[in-house]
Amino acid sequence: MQIAMVGLGRMGANMVRRLLKAGHECVVYDLSPDNVAALVQEGAIGATSLAEMIGKLETPRAVWLMLPAAITTKIAREVAEHLAPGDTIIDGGNSYYRDAVDLSREFEPRQIGFVDVGTSGGVWGLDRGYCLMVGGPKDSYERLEPVFAALAPGKDGSGAKPGTGDTAPLGYLHCGASGAGHFVKMVHNGIEYGLMAAYAEGLNILRAADAGSEARAADAETAPLHDPQYYQFDIDVGGVAEVWRHGSVISSWLLDLTASALKTDADLSEFGGKVSDSGEGRWTLRAAVETGVPAPVLSSALFGRFASRDGDEYANKIISAMRYAFGGHSEK
Amino acid sequence: MQIAMVGLGRMGANMVRRLLKAGHECVVYDLSPDNVAALVQEGAIGATSLAEMIGKLETPRAVWLMLPAAITTKIAREVAEHLAPGDTIIDGGNSYYRDAVDLSREFEPRQIGFVDVGTSGGVWGLDRGYCLMVGGPKDSYERLEPVFAALAPGKDGSGAKPGTGDTAPLGYLHCGASGAGHFVKMVHNGIEYGLMAAYAEGLNILRAADAGSEARAADAETAPLHDPQYYQFDIDVGGVAEVWRHGSVISSWLLDLTASALKTDADLSEFGGKVSDSGEGRWTLRAAVETGVPAPVLSSALFGRFASRDGDEYANKIISAMRYAFGGHSEK
Amino acid sequence: MQIAMVGLGRMGANMVRRLLKAGHECVVYDLSPDNVAALVQEGAIGATSLAEMIGKLETPRAVWLMLPAAITTKIAREVAEHLAPGDTIIDGGNSYYRDAVDLSREFEPRQIGFVDVGTSGGVWGLDRGYCLMVGGPKDSYERLEPVFAALAPGKDGSGAKPGTGDTAPLGYLHCGASGAGHFVKMVHNGIEYGLMAAYAEGLNILRAADAGSEARAADAETAPLHDPQYYQFDIDVGGVAEVWRHGSVISSWLLDLTASALKTDADLSEFGGKVSDSGEGRWTLRAAVETGVPAPVLSSALFGRFASRDGDEYANKIISAMRYAFGGHSEK
Amino acid sequence: MQIAMVGLGRMGANMVRRLLKAGHECVVYDLSPDNVAALVQEGAIGATSLAEMIGKLETPRAVWLMLPAAITTKIAREVAEHLAPGDTIIDGGNSYYRDAVDLSREFEPRQIGFVDVGTSGGVWGLDRGYCLMVGGPKDSYERLEPVFAALAPGKDGSGAKPGTGDTAPLGYLHCGASGAGHFVKMVHNGIEYGLMAAYAEGLNILRAADAGSEARAADAETAPLHDPQYYQFDIDVGGVAEVWRHGSVISSWLLDLTASALKTDADLSEFGGKVSDSGEGRWTLRAAVETGVPAPVLSSALFGRFASRDGDEYANKIISAMRYAFGGHSEK
Repeated sequence: MQIAMVGLGRMGANMVRRLLKAGHECVVYDLSPDNVAALVQEGAIGATSLAEMIGKLETPRAVWLMLPAAITTKIAREVAEHLAPGDTIIDGGNSYYRDAVDLSREFEPRQIGFVDVGTSGGVWGLDRGYCLMVGGPKDSYERLEPVFAALAPGKDGSGAKPGTGDTAPLGYLHCGASGAGHFVKMVHNGIEYGLMAAYAEGLNILRAADAGSEARAADAETAPLHDPQYYQFDIDVGGVAEVWRHGSVISSWLLDLTASALKTDADLSEFGGKVSDSGEGRWTLRAAVETGVPAPVLSSALFGRFASRDGDEYANKIISAMRYAFGGHSEK
Repeated sequence: MQIAMVGLGRMGANMVRRLLKAGHECVVYDLSPDNVAALVQEGAIGATSLAEMIGKLETPRAVWLMLPAAITTKIAREVAEHLAPGDTIIDGGNSYYRDAVDLSREFEPRQIGFVDVGTSGGVWGLDRGYCLMVGGPKDSYERLEPVFAALAPGKDGSGAKPGTGDTAPLGYLHCGASGAGHFVKMVHNGIEYGLMAAYAEGLNILRAADAGSEARAADAETAPLHDPQYYQFDIDVGGVAEVWRHGSVISSWLLDLTASALKTDADLSEFGGKVSDSGEGRWTLRAAVETGVPAPVLSSALFGRFASRDGDEYANKIISAMRYAFGGHSEK
Repeated sequence: MQIAMVGLGRMGANMVRRLLKAGHECVVYDLSPDNVAALVQEGAIGATSLAEMIGKLETPRAVWLMLPAAITTKIAREVAEHLAPGDTIIDGGNSYYRDAVDLSREFEPRQIGFVDVGTSGGVWGLDRGYCLMVGGPKDSYERLEPVFAALAPGKDGSGAKPGTGDTAPLGYLHCGASGAGHFVKMVHNGIEYGLMAAYAEGLNILRAADAGSEARAADAETAPLHDPQYYQFDIDVGGVAEVWRHGSVISSWLLDLTASALKTDADLSEFGGKVSDSGEGRWTLRAAVETGVPAPVLSSALFGRFASRDGDEYANKIISAMRYAFGGHSEK
Repeated sequence: MQIAMVGLGRMGANMVRRLLKAGHECVVYDLSPDNVAALVQEGAIGATSLAEMIGKLETPRAVWLMLPAAITTKIAREVAEHLAPGDTIIDGGNSYYRDAVDLSREFEPRQIGFVDVGTSGGVWGLDRGYCLMVGGPKDSYERLEPVFAALAPGKDGSGAKPGTGDTAPLGYLHCGASGAGHFVKMVHNGIEYGLMAAYAEGLNILRAADAGSEARAADAETAPLHDPQYYQFDIDVGGVAEVWRHGSVISSWLLDLTASALKTDADLSEFGGKVSDSGEGRWTLRAAVETGVPAPVLSSALFGRFASRDGDEYANKIISAMRYAFGGHSEK
């Protein structure tokens, strides 16, 4: 079928490629003409403006947005200006699910369907297929199912088939009403933060397994290490990450990537340790808090990222100030 | 080659089966004669006591212990009484790595090698192969390598070969001196706790996505829910777990198992929510603390297990008592 | 001066008493006629409806709301219907600061001032005075200062004086524009949760100091306790709480209350350990998350409360299900 | 009575001063002759070696050690060499309680009493008195009670009297057998870490209350801030700390010190935010873990200190490496 794609960054461009390969017709637009031109060379139909892009579509139209969360709502509204009853806007970005709830209501009177698609798979999705978590009206979902089927990994040997409702084994799922897709993707990313931090903490402990071979200061500002004989291991962290991939309970795709990165550079010296977050982890935590669900692991992972960017600096100064005030302790 | 196995529980018995299948000779012993008899039927050589078992071995002997951590050291010492210089004891259980450090030193003057093997794979290891993290003297490791190679998953297409040092892709790895194997397995389990909790928290949030459809009390003891319209989703948690297995960043073996369990019973009604821990998570945390490595995710996961078994009850009573004292708040 | 009070629960009634004692005139209203009658006996002027109450006030009127957060906005709007330009509404409850931001804007065109007052002190405030964190227009704040001065503890020997701006030593402070008072109170309560949990966790550890005198199962589902000789203390938890009040770094008012509660009943047997939360801790966490500030302690404290009310149950069942799936572990 | 003091740092020197003021005779020793000389000028009896110091004591002798944890055991053994049956060694430092358990057993055959005293009060103890948590044999405790009574704050108006057992209101308490004093002090410090972090996190959130007035990048690496209108407050953090001291639920001695520090320098610019820890928080966590008590707040506080000293750096690099691997995300 025919679909328009707005936003040809890492994710959007690869999704177009995967759709083209499956025989779908893609009309594409991006602020950068170079991004458009690149995909035209690969078989897409290019456009130099939203209006032109939409003009090239047959009704009922389907326009897929793949944009940073901060601008998605604005562009969705611009697109909607050009659409007619029966058309559909799909937001496949890392948007806040509440925006999907709101936009779907906003567009409803104009009979423009709004479908939110949580998309996971990263730069690997082009080859592996993307995991798609879809929210929105059932009829919009069903009309777009060929697109989802093409983007998702597809056949897994379980016998699952498109059009049957039981499509999870194929890598896409209708999760519920508008917002449900982004809600599920939000939680997916919250979990992702937790998984990443769990591996990172563990590997960091392995790296410290030789702590007993270093001398420590014997002053009141330094915690003594009892029994240094138990911390004399020089662990090959990358080798351990690799062996865990084979038969262990903690094997996973994230571990595959980690082992690969450590093989290239065990010290990860090209990274500084300032970890970004894109909003999903924050929204997950808000949902946990508002619904009364404990999420200590997911919150610890998120706060670790904040601290990596020095969000804890003022707090730490306060603690140092207290220590100085009650005990005369100076920072080392 | 020939090896003795002490402890024929879930793990030990399956490891014997996998070794037999690979053509190794296994002499087995367990407190339960039934456990021994079962394996004799499958081709193992049975024994009715440690002494008899050891008597059936040719030198240099190798005795593998697969026992609860609380009794491993005691049995290791009993076994050692019957051994001679050149023999080896292997501890494949979830033992504390410090015991391995200590025992290896204790046995060294008697020239009995002590090898600690962290073993992951659970009940699935019989078919999938076990991931093995090995610590101990290089020569002991090398003599036992055929056993490790048989227990581990083996060929992964990477071209890795036994005897080359680069055996991680095969699923076993010499991690360092005595204790290193159990140290790595300890951290492995610490990570495992974190991963499990990350998924569990996330799925719990998904389950609460309909919180806005319930009425809440409007009193001073109840947090109000702003904007209940954003919590009206009725998510199929099991379906989501399944779709995440296909193409998403958080796909993993633990997720495979979770999706399978939720398919059988979405409410998990046969479980009460009291989660045991076997020591490894605790030891991981101790190592983090002693080496100065932050492990907020791993500790949150461990403390969640403690709380599931009511380890937080007295603390919560104290908090309720404070609330009553300063604000007259009664528990609901 | 004259002030109206709506909501005569624990907090509201005592605040009226404190205001009466300082010579202010209080017109009071509550859904319960008994609550009104009780204060009329103590010198307040009663009313049987909002309208009647407001009718008894001279202009410019000042109406203080002391209500559950869930209904404050609704009542504020009802009150505003009866007010005129120049009048002021004060919200002294545990309301969400965002409501104050919104309401102040809503009332602005009608020239009704909106002042938000975070109030701390609990049932002790009547005697000790309340700590007041005030947000709102400077002129409204200044007109109401005599009321704040009467409610707050007052003279502390520092020489601070009302009307000088430097009123913090007196126990009240103009924190900024509308919403700032509740924002500061919100964070105050977030901290409160953290402090309470810190004491509770510590005292819980003291209580467990005899763990080495109990026998533990020696199976694969139970973590062994190394060195039980180090856990043989039978600590008088209440005595310790008391001694810490005298000269230690951790002395505080919350500790005073805790020591007192433990003196009455060391086992706190009248409490069940289900700890409520009233919203402030949740909002604090949301603010932390949205501004990128790590708050691992405050979030841990909040999640502990959720878990005390079984918010973690489904998550724990998932973990048990995973353990059963990979290792055949049954719950104990 | 007469007592010897070894270690005349901040804590030791002030304790001697307080003892002298109460009329006790103090024989003092320190590696630094200057430290000894200073106290001799104030009335203490100086010594140039441990042996000389002990030679100046009448039997039964009492020697109080006030030293860094890392060297206390070594010096205790040296002191014991010079003592005789009936003498007592007191360790008042931040030592590990297990050392007290072990040393008390080691000295028992020689009839040298070992008393462990957890000491809180910091540089303020000289004037306020110290809070003392005592472990050890009852008879040693009783003989030393005049010393404890002099060091502790003393009369609190409750009518409590030395020699009655109910001495907690005076600021000292016999907590149990050898090790109990340091165990209680260990937990005290664990709590202290939690309290400090709770205040620090909260004040950090207050400081960020103007986050909505800054522009944020609108890219995929930056979490968008919805509703910036709710983060427009410019809070006087020091003023808030001050007002909370008066009538609020979170008033405490640590808050007193914090308000004072913020008054001097609201930006705390002389601190860098690298927070030391002296071991007690680590040991508290180990005790929690080994006894199965959840301590998420205390552990978060401790890990925050580790992270402030970059203990999380390698973990964060791993997370950045994962993000790059799956999504092509570069660090900002």
